[in-house]
Amino acid sequence: MAEHARELVKTNGFEHVVEVIEGSMEDITLPEKVDVIISEWMGYFLLRESMFDSVICARDRWLNPDGVMYPSHARMWVAPIRSGLVDQKKIDYDRAMDDWSHFVNETKTFYGVDMGSLTKPFTDEQRKYYLQTSLWNNLHPNQVIGKPAVIKEIDCLTSSVNDLLSLQANISSNITAENTRFCGFGGWFDVHFRGRKENPAKNEIELTTAPSEDLGTHWGQQVFLFYPSTRVSQGDNMTMNFSMNRSKENHRLLEVEFDCELRQSSGNSLPSFSKKFYIE
Amino acid sequence: MAEHARELVKTNGFEHVVEVIEGSMEDITLPEKVDVIISEWMGYFLLRESMFDSVICARDRWLNPDGVMYPSHARMWVAPIRSGLVDQKKIDYDRAMDDWSHFVNETKTFYGVDMGSLTKPFTDEQRKYYLQTSLWNNLHPNQVIGKPAVIKEIDCLTSSVNDLLSLQANISSNITAENTRFCGFGGWFDVHFRGRKENPAKNEIELTTAPSEDLGTHWGQQVFLFYPSTRVSQGDNMTMNFSMNRSKENHRLLEVEFDCELRQSSGNSLPSFSKKFYIE
Repeated sequence: MAEHARELVKTNGFEHVVEVIEGSMEDITLPEKVDVIISEWMGYFLLRESMFDSVICARDRWLNPDGVMYPSHARMWVAPIRSGLVDQKKIDYDRAMDDWSHFVNETKTFYGVDMGSLTKPFTDEQRKYYLQTSLWNNLHPNQVIGKPAVIKEIDCLTSSVNDLLSLQANISSNITAENTRFCGFGGWFDVHFRGRKENPAKNEIELTTAPSEDLGTHWGQQVFLFYPSTRVSQGDNMTMNFSMNRSKENHRLLEVEFDCELRQSSGNSLPSFSKKFYIE
Repeated sequence: MAEHARELVKTNGFEHVVEVIEGSMEDITLPEKVDVIISEWMGYFLLRESMFDSVICARDRWLNPDGVMYPSHARMWVAPIRSGLVDQKKIDYDRAMDDWSHFVNETKTFYGVDMGSLTKPFTDEQRKYYLQTSLWNNLHPNQVIGKPAVIKEIDCLTSSVNDLLSLQANISSNITAENTRFCGFGGWFDVHFRGRKENPAKNEIELTTAPSEDLGTHWGQQVFLFYPSTRVSQGDNMTMNFSMNRSKENHRLLEVEFDCELRQSSGNSLPSFSKKFYIE
């Protein structure tokens, strides 16, 4: 990457302006403090892969007191969605379990070996893989069935790694679609180029990865599918406790929990439900 | 894995017979030397991932002087093939290069930045990815257009890691299909359960991953596609120098070279050609 960057600087005649410094942000030493840090650190659902850690390190070590970050701000969003994928994943899971059951029977019948004691761990593994792993998806706006809500706002100038280790949010979303299925949540982010109060951008720019009717973005949306789906309708209200933590085994992986309550427009409350997901 | 194995031993009532020892083959110490080493170490095209190294280590450290290896022998095969994939991969490559060319033009036009100096490394990267990386494939027997040839025989009892670091073979294969395209080579392997001379198996068994009309095996075949394809016919003779070496960067990856000569049944020799591939 650095080699290619150097080549580009040279062939475009900016050797006297641009110096390429090669190395991990955590290791390198810059010749002086900097006025601007511009970085494309955003992973799926903003924080997947935890690349912002290195940008924070760069900021704390090398940004001038009045320097600016670009992007300067970021927000994470979730919204209730409908999606046919929830059925597909259940079918995939059922098929995997059928195959296993067939395998256990054959192994017993033909070889006299009872594999049944592995059914529990196999089931857990398949459930995690098919039903509890969030997916990359390009949602169409009409798959969003309730009001999107912000679950985290990040000021890139002041956020610390600690602020991002464990996210918590309580949100409420009114269902806006008539008589449909609630199949889980879609998550996305936007970033802003505002600069800072002492040093604002001339033109404020917002880039969003929200569901769109056109081709969408590289990031798409992260979807968390709840099986079984729930019948909902316009005017129903969803309240939700969201939490996101880094996996203990690998800090680049994330674990997410949703605790939901649905109050129907009739006044009825459905039993609350809780779902855990892995962002891998 | 060890945990599941222990559970299986227990629930099948073999605790007094089977002891599960957990650890890397290179690190563990066994209570005594063993009479049999049975291992499923075979990767795609037999040697991909170089897992046999650990089995050799186990053998040299722990097998009794008259102990047996299962499988006891293995052979690697190649044969000339035809495959529509060769066209698909060329289309994919051309599309990637068109996209790049479009990107370079846009970047120049809209941002005044000339990315053209990266065209050479980008081309090399795409060529490697689309045209020089061997593929997993399930070949149908009628895609094999010439006589298969053995390029390596391994006696699991005596082979050393050194024997496998660098393979060389000179083979000759007569084209057996009438008026068809030579699109490259397919590679596969078989393994044998013969035991050893002093301690032979009661029933010798051969397992093969050769192209088949049924569902094939997990291993399928490794295909090396030569673009452009060459028109061949029954009676033509292909001679080929094959070499396979471990990648310097990662010893689990392999690099393969084919030097081919085709002598047509008319007596004509086509210009010889040479292709390099990566097994990733």
